[in-house]
Amino acid sequence: MTKSATTLVAPDVPPMVNAHSHAFQRAMAGLAEKQEDPEDSFWTWRELMYRFAGQIGPDDLQAIAAQLYVELLKSGYTTVCEFHYLHHQPDGRPYDDPAEMSQALVRAAAEAGIRLVLLPTLYMTRGFDGGPLGDRQRRFGHGLDDYLDLVARLRQTSGVRVGMALHSLRAVPPEAMQALWAADLTGLGPIHIHIAEQTAEVDECLQRRGARPVAWLLDNAPVDTRWTLVHATHLSGDEIGRLARSGANVAICPSTDANLGDGLFPLPEYLAQNGAFSIGTDSHVSTSVVEELRWLEYGQRLRPPAPEHRRRCRVTPCRRAALPGRCRGWTDGCGRGTGRGCRSGRRRRRRIDRCQRRSMARCLRVRRKPQSGAGRSGGRPANHYRRASCRRSEDRKPLPHGAQAIVHDRLMPG
Amino acid sequence: MTKSATTLVAPDVPPMVNAHSHAFQRAMAGLAEKQEDPEDSFWTWRELMYRFAGQIGPDDLQAIAAQLYVELLKSGYTTVCEFHYLHHQPDGRPYDDPAEMSQALVRAAAEAGIRLVLLPTLYMTRGFDGGPLGDRQRRFGHGLDDYLDLVARLRQTSGVRVGMALHSLRAVPPEAMQALWAADLTGLGPIHIHIAEQTAEVDECLQRRGARPVAWLLDNAPVDTRWTLVHATHLSGDEIGRLARSGANVAICPSTDANLGDGLFPLPEYLAQNGAFSIGTDSHVSTSVVEELRWLEYGQRLRPPAPEHRRRCRVTPCRRAALPGRCRGWTDGCGRGTGRGCRSGRRRRRRIDRCQRRSMARCLRVRRKPQSGAGRSGGRPANHYRRASCRRSEDRKPLPHGAQAIVHDRLMPG
Repeated sequence: MTKSATTLVAPDVPPMVNAHSHAFQRAMAGLAEKQEDPEDSFWTWRELMYRFAGQIGPDDLQAIAAQLYVELLKSGYTTVCEFHYLHHQPDGRPYDDPAEMSQALVRAAAEAGIRLVLLPTLYMTRGFDGGPLGDRQRRFGHGLDDYLDLVARLRQTSGVRVGMALHSLRAVPPEAMQALWAADLTGLGPIHIHIAEQTAEVDECLQRRGARPVAWLLDNAPVDTRWTLVHATHLSGDEIGRLARSGANVAICPSTDANLGDGLFPLPEYLAQNGAFSIGTDSHVSTSVVEELRWLEYGQRLRPPAPEHRRRCRVTPCRRAALPGRCRGWTDGCGRGTGRGCRSGRRRRRRIDRCQRRSMARCLRVRRKPQSGAGRSGGRPANHYRRASCRRSEDRKPLPHGAQAIVHDRLMPG
Repeated sequence: MTKSATTLVAPDVPPMVNAHSHAFQRAMAGLAEKQEDPEDSFWTWRELMYRFAGQIGPDDLQAIAAQLYVELLKSGYTTVCEFHYLHHQPDGRPYDDPAEMSQALVRAAAEAGIRLVLLPTLYMTRGFDGGPLGDRQRRFGHGLDDYLDLVARLRQTSGVRVGMALHSLRAVPPEAMQALWAADLTGLGPIHIHIAEQTAEVDECLQRRGARPVAWLLDNAPVDTRWTLVHATHLSGDEIGRLARSGANVAICPSTDANLGDGLFPLPEYLAQNGAFSIGTDSHVSTSVVEELRWLEYGQRLRPPAPEHRRRCRVTPCRRAALPGRCRGWTDGCGRGTGRGCRSGRRRRRRIDRCQRRSMARCLRVRRKPQSGAGRSGGRPANHYRRASCRRSEDRKPLPHGAQAIVHDRLMPG
């Protein structure tokens, strides 16, 4: 360790996976936070995002992603799943190296020292009508063969796990999706898809395809533990059960879902069916694990209906109900340890399980047992406040006045 | 400045007032975060809080409050309004000095260096039925004369602004309230009251007094700009208008309101009627200004009804609609600058207005104009990410790779 390095006390939270990221959006965080139109919505936000995305080159992307990845590491994430659709030049022509933008992300991850799960994204049509991409979407687009070439090339990159993403049901026509399953995807990483984030998407899917988006996907794709459905906010009761039984993972993105006004994922209902989930920071309006987990839970506490039955602690499991050795629903979202069940994946999952048990349930809990003055971290004062999933050293300051002895052991024994 | 001090760049946010605090609850943050009962609610939380409160002595309170006030200062609050009802010994007998617990808060504030607005709280009955306090509430209780003595004594304390709080309509019978207005309150600070936090309170008030809590208060107390109504979550349309017109301030406590599952204050409707508000951290599950302001806005984005009309930016004002020189609704909540309109109050309010304009609208915005390398803060790198209302120096690290030049001026000119 160099002399200038800051020594942090041992972290309380094991490494976290960030299951959904669009790195470039970190640099536009805040640009859309002023009301320009009383009818501001996800769709007006998307227009601004397109304008912004249209101006990012490979060097920009690498700089922004490297900065973001450092922020994520500082917050406690050690793996990031990058849902990457910013492939070509702004006018839609591929770069000389068609993987140029992907490689910018690979370089950024290496530079920051974060584990990257790269999910090159297939984006073919502008909407459910199957029409061609608009001017601002052109740099996202691929034909199927070019896309499979890109995936194959990226899989040669060392130090990166490569999976696949379908941007959404709007962006990948049913025939292309079928053709995709015919390709050889052996050994490929996880498959992610944006789905049912907005009610307008649900309505259009019902109108065009006669089914809600998640129901349609479950009927038309081999959805299993390898899959992560991003958002999946708007689900019918039937979809909740089917999705949970499929073994797929849902990537919930609490801060982005709130920022965009998407709505709240029906988490208690989904957990009641043993559904699996993970979290992502998506547009990166927040990079804090604490905030993400806190508001995952708080959103559920604020969810209607029945205000006379407003419950607290809707997600954090009851002590007696917690499954031994495995926390309800929590997955790492990057496709390791699921399916074939590799050993390191199981190990990581166990760590993440412990993480959920600790950080969700005791996000602001104080320590139960005082430690003697000279602990592992070298003279760390005993019993002090700490946020279980916060790793900033400033939060580890001891209480003044011997208040170390106040909390829990004297005031709340047992 | 000592050698070991950390130099921070100039803060972006002017001093903030924390309009609602129960300092001792900081030490129980997290203790109630595990579901013990599927019907966990505000009322089961209150039971735990009573148990916890029953064990805090003056030294404990001073230690916990001093720690909290340092945390608040670090987060950007410079004034705290302490809604203080932990007056007596656990069995209800007054301490030898009846102001012992209040003085513990005064000492804590002096030690931390925060400006204290002390609101000794009147708590007389267990509920709308006017019954005597329960065992666990006994240490909160006062007769009217003893209470007025306490207020008078505290007003002699130098360096502290003293106001008054009524715990709630449940805790102060109508006759006592009338007697209070007959007392000489000249020159007293602000008057705060918990109100309409839970639907059960609204239902009981309707049943017992034939009116909703806020409507009843407006009919039975001289509510004006001197008043702060804490929470006021559950309002009818009529109450929203009357409350806004009264000139009173509402202290909204976003993180606590969410933690307790209280619900969401109808802020856009209230602002549309020029209602005044401020924020408080209440039970202190979060002490972050950024988080509080972010979720004040996000809560509104997630609020039903009409998911097809889910709007973004519900609170942050439209550029054109912002009132010149005065931001909609924002007050300092500590009674300065309202009513008689002192000069320093107006100055502080102007600062707070600027604060809201900046921090709510650009909570994560990047700077619009690059600065030359050697700015006021001594060689601070130009254009870099920063959260407008975040004062941690770690967030001021420059972007790598010359990314300083990327954001806004090149990517988003104008």
